[in-house]
Amino acid sequence: VKIAIVGTGSVGQTLGKRWSALGHSVCFGTRNPAEARVQQLVSETGHGASAATVADAVRPAEVVVLAVPYDAVEQTLRGAGELSGKVLIDATNPVVMGADLLRRGLLIGHDTSGGEEVARLAPGARVVKALNTVGATVMAAPQNGSDRAVLFYCGDDGSSKQTVAQLLGELGFDPVDCGPLSTSRLLEPVGMLWIALAFGGRGPHFAFKMMSVGA
Amino acid sequence: VKIAIVGTGSVGQTLGKRWSALGHSVCFGTRNPAEARVQQLVSETGHGASAATVADAVRPAEVVVLAVPYDAVEQTLRGAGELSGKVLIDATNPVVMGADLLRRGLLIGHDTSGGEEVARLAPGARVVKALNTVGATVMAAPQNGSDRAVLFYCGDDGSSKQTVAQLLGELGFDPVDCGPLSTSRLLEPVGMLWIALAFGGRGPHFAFKMMSVGA
Repeated sequence: VKIAIVGTGSVGQTLGKRWSALGHSVCFGTRNPAEARVQQLVSETGHGASAATVADAVRPAEVVVLAVPYDAVEQTLRGAGELSGKVLIDATNPVVMGADLLRRGLLIGHDTSGGEEVARLAPGARVVKALNTVGATVMAAPQNGSDRAVLFYCGDDGSSKQTVAQLLGELGFDPVDCGPLSTSRLLEPVGMLWIALAFGGRGPHFAFKMMSVGA
Repeated sequence: VKIAIVGTGSVGQTLGKRWSALGHSVCFGTRNPAEARVQQLVSETGHGASAATVADAVRPAEVVVLAVPYDAVEQTLRGAGELSGKVLIDATNPVVMGADLLRRGLLIGHDTSGGEEVARLAPGARVVKALNTVGATVMAAPQNGSDRAVLFYCGDDGSSKQTVAQLLGELGFDPVDCGPLSTSRLLEPVGMLWIALAFGGRGPHFAFKMMSVGA
């Protein structure tokens, strides 16, 4: 699959390296592809990965992963060119950044969500909310023995969700379809809860796995 | 521990039976304690359990469990008498009830929560949000072999949280402290997500367990 990873923070780096190693064609989209930091990422990623401006990375991609801070989402999408028909994985959370991260919580929620805002800003894109409920530490290694970390996703287009579920499964996740894109209103609080636990003392090396009970 | 279970639906029934069997003193608080249905619940529960009006059940209790539908919370708390100093476990979710449950989601959220509303309605009570993120099927049997289902809880009073964590552990849960009561804004969406998955086709016999990753 031709994947554009938009954003070169810990999430973008981790996903790009892993999908690249799994045989997908990865291009990092970023403001300054010539930056030394980005060139080093490309070299570490190997497997034919490349870097380009966001618009150039997005153009040939079948799947675009939005992995920028939430306050950069609007500007990034406005500069991304035509997204219509592409699968757009929204991995962001509308977290209020700053020193008091844990006290301030989510910027929006309840009757809208970041996922729905992304869909509004990228008309025609087939948006799937995914990879927002765990940190990059989990994306790097979602399996522990036979245990696979759950990865919740939601969206309004069935075939896009199948594509995304396949890509998540290849990373080692147990993908769980949570319904329409409006379920982002629930998945973003789940993401914020993971952040609150990770930064609240537990550290980032945990995830949740599905289990059967009393069946 | 002297526990008042307020509400005799599936959650109240399950928690009352299990804590009673574990040796705690359980009294179900309900509008009509003489009702045949309630008397049958008391008889099935055994172990010295009883039923009384909400105010009579609450008066001697150290721990009060609020397990009524959300639209009954305000009236129930207004009729519950003095709650000051008691541990009040809020197991409710502000779900919009009705045929289109899954589409309508939560009644409130983001900048407040059911847990915070409960604290406002029960001044002086030591409110702990807990037992709202899984259904009664999970409360009946949270363990499967060595796997224990996670139970998230939050609250502003440390000693109350210790009491609740102890009671949750006795049920077989892996209790996870999520911080202050305002984290109910995140735990109620988690509850709604469990409901959406359970009623969206998966059925109610699942939960999540904590796992370590890439440590």
